Amino acid sequence: MRQIYFHRDSKRGVNGTYNWLVDEVKELGDALKTNNKKALEDEFADVIAWLSSLANVADVDLEAAAMNKYPNKCPKCKYTPCNCTF
Amino acid sequence: MRQIYFHRDSKRGVNGTYNWLVDEVKELGDALKTNNKKALEDEFADVIAWLSSLANVADVDLEAAAMNKYPNKCPKCKYTPCNCTF
Repeated sequence: MRQIYFHRDSKRGVNGTYNWLVDEVKELGDALKTNNKKALEDEFADVIAWLSSLANVADVDLEAAAMNKYPNKCPKCKYTPCNCTF
Repeated sequence: MRQIYFHRDSKRGVNGTYNWLVDEVKELGDALKTNNKKALEDEFADVIAWLSSLANVADVDLEAAAMNKYPNKCPKCKYTPCNCTF
């Protein structure tokens, strides 16, 4: 995503890119109410694409952040599968 | 995420998991307004974690969906970097 879009994302900035992400999450919500699997897959792709763009603009390594917080076990109870009681 | 959380996600269902995702996107928006890098990384991790949980519940392969729509080039102009004129 950085190679494809960073030149555009960096000009748009954090706020504008965050607003796009919010819009894509809404579109994903709409797609979840339909039975169109291809459209649903495309909306999931769009959300992760915009989340990735936002991470690039915010200078966050999305994959590293995810792996640090969720290192194949629940960060709260430390178990796989999660054994939290709440 | 499937190994850690699917037993919980599948009970919660699509609507409840989507609502959690929306809440996490809001928290990410709040974190973007601060200067706390660790908190920001954690919020990015939470959004991708809940997006992954939602994909599992909706029976969508998130990675495949992303790679199908964004195969290292812009899906609209077909260029890397994106050369769209809009």
